[in-house]
Amino acid sequence: MQPKPQIVNLPVYQQGKPVEEVKRELGLDEVIKLASNENPYGASPKAKAAIEQELSQISMYPDGNAVELTEVLAGHLGVNRDQFVFGCGSDEVIALITRAFLLPGEENIMADQTFSVYKSNADIEGAVSIEVPLVEGTHDLDGMLKAVNERTKIIWICNPNNPTGTIVAHTDIVNFLDKVPEHVLVVLDEAYAEFVTDPSYPDSLSLLSKYPNLMILRTFSKIYGLASLRIGYGVGQPSVVRLINQVREPFNTSRLAQAAAKAALTDHEFIDACRTKNRSGVEYLTAEFDRLGLKYFPAHGNFILVNVKKSGREVFQSLLKLGIIIRAGFDKYPEYIRVSVGTPDENTKFIAALEKVLTVQEQPVTAE
Amino acid sequence: MQPKPQIVNLPVYQQGKPVEEVKRELGLDEVIKLASNENPYGASPKAKAAIEQELSQISMYPDGNAVELTEVLAGHLGVNRDQFVFGCGSDEVIALITRAFLLPGEENIMADQTFSVYKSNADIEGAVSIEVPLVEGTHDLDGMLKAVNERTKIIWICNPNNPTGTIVAHTDIVNFLDKVPEHVLVVLDEAYAEFVTDPSYPDSLSLLSKYPNLMILRTFSKIYGLASLRIGYGVGQPSVVRLINQVREPFNTSRLAQAAAKAALTDHEFIDACRTKNRSGVEYLTAEFDRLGLKYFPAHGNFILVNVKKSGREVFQSLLKLGIIIRAGFDKYPEYIRVSVGTPDENTKFIAALEKVLTVQEQPVTAE
Repeated sequence: MQPKPQIVNLPVYQQGKPVEEVKRELGLDEVIKLASNENPYGASPKAKAAIEQELSQISMYPDGNAVELTEVLAGHLGVNRDQFVFGCGSDEVIALITRAFLLPGEENIMADQTFSVYKSNADIEGAVSIEVPLVEGTHDLDGMLKAVNERTKIIWICNPNNPTGTIVAHTDIVNFLDKVPEHVLVVLDEAYAEFVTDPSYPDSLSLLSKYPNLMILRTFSKIYGLASLRIGYGVGQPSVVRLINQVREPFNTSRLAQAAAKAALTDHEFIDACRTKNRSGVEYLTAEFDRLGLKYFPAHGNFILVNVKKSGREVFQSLLKLGIIIRAGFDKYPEYIRVSVGTPDENTKFIAALEKVLTVQEQPVTAE
Repeated sequence: MQPKPQIVNLPVYQQGKPVEEVKRELGLDEVIKLASNENPYGASPKAKAAIEQELSQISMYPDGNAVELTEVLAGHLGVNRDQFVFGCGSDEVIALITRAFLLPGEENIMADQTFSVYKSNADIEGAVSIEVPLVEGTHDLDGMLKAVNERTKIIWICNPNNPTGTIVAHTDIVNFLDKVPEHVLVVLDEAYAEFVTDPSYPDSLSLLSKYPNLMILRTFSKIYGLASLRIGYGVGQPSVVRLINQVREPFNTSRLAQAAAKAALTDHEFIDACRTKNRSGVEYLTAEFDRLGLKYFPAHGNFILVNVKKSGREVFQSLLKLGIIIRAGFDKYPEYIRVSVGTPDENTKFIAALEKVLTVQEQPVTAE
């Protein structure tokens, strides 16, 4: 049984360490996970109520076309109902886009440090990934444009970028879209869009009618607090969306996820409060990084990439022993760690632990 | 933006009509859905309790490796923990298998009337599907063997077969596996396995150690009553499973699905009761078909394909007007309908409606 040759040596995705696993392994009572950019305030109570209401239908397949959710979302975003493709997280929408568009040997363009799922899926399709270096942690749109050729099918722009947290501005995106050839699909991954407060951030939905080669990705896993349920979506031109839906499994989002997403969309108060608290958290953490003399990238999402001036992996391990899970091991930023913004209490404990790790000489590891 | 040429004209999956839609469209108060082979008795209360307990973790990503569910399932099935790949329904496992193994132009073999997701995914990969005619509604294993050549990568056997409900026996599968060349992956799709009471049904798990090219698919959508949650799995050799996991998105099953599946597995009493009630339903329905002079295939799952001696699509429409949703429109069986086994009350109402539809001259449709 020969698999596709291109999949044999794919790297395995490294998920943030689960809290229970860390508690068990290290014998800790309290473990704080600031590793997966989840919403520390959970989800809207309306989402939970919607799930409970759906439990009477637990044995029934979901609506494969997510008609009700589509209707609410179309109203919320001001686009038409035929502009959506839903996925088991926006991860799956990324996979579906590659499955619909990338033939072996064709090219796609992305930043050299960005969400890893673009490249892993392009690899599966046997496509060539052109990784354009970030400039000061930010997408180099000119550099990406220069990388376009007749084999280019997709350009991925993660905005805010994961893991750097930087954004590209509305005017820059417009200039970029004006120059991208029509045969190239531009995917704006806006998983963290709802956290952004910077007024220069693109109003990308307004660009959809002008640029038929634009596709926007959003998710319910971040500010909406539904990461457990796996639901995200893409918004684009009906003709493009239809092609992506052609390669979608009929029942790829669960009944509970659809119901919870629909309810979560209506709770503006919860979302506004989460955005405000996240921004306060970013301000607290960056002020503390300043105090500690640590540089960081401008953080527009709910996470910060900070330079710890030593191996990020070592700092990860040291923090882990203190019950704090963060992310490290970014190829282009080996001396950085990525920390998700937590509750005020979590943020304070993280800073205390980080300060301890960075200032105290570590004890040599002894065998037990 | 050119998509892959092979995906442009893919047929769109026809889902069973949702109950709410039928109620709305036809102004009916009661609608009975016997169209998607769901469990009419819902799911174990333990599964619902497990979901409610997970709601406190709603904003946290699931365990991408489904460690706890894997452990329970490995014990339940008597296989090792490195033999599982989980999917958003077994649908997704099918998609992952094709994405891992099928290169454009390579071949896969299936029955000419079986679960449509095998062919749709092979189409997406640009592979060639060889459809071997069923013989009396049953897989023609000899015919499938004859279709094998050096380009064959996968043979799909749906057992019980959807939509005919027939099974191939243990001894036939063993003889078949003895003859299939090692370079061909044999996928036994056992979505309805837990409903089967016929002693000749394969003990397929016992064959895994002898046949490294065997992969078994199971789901929580059928007897376990968790179709709303989207979770299924494949069991196979660790080396094959690893390859399929390489093309899996990291968080493709939800936290609630994993928790519910784990709980559902332990409620043997619920599953045993569902199997018994399903079998009674099959006996009731087939006795009624006999009374009505209708032929049907031996039904080993929770559905029956019955010959209504006129257009199945027309019978579908007529039943719909009476508030009963079934499935019809099977290419090879245009005069058959597929009905899921419901509760005794649902089955009785279905038979009454069918008898009415088949015996009464239909009124001509008039515009309102």
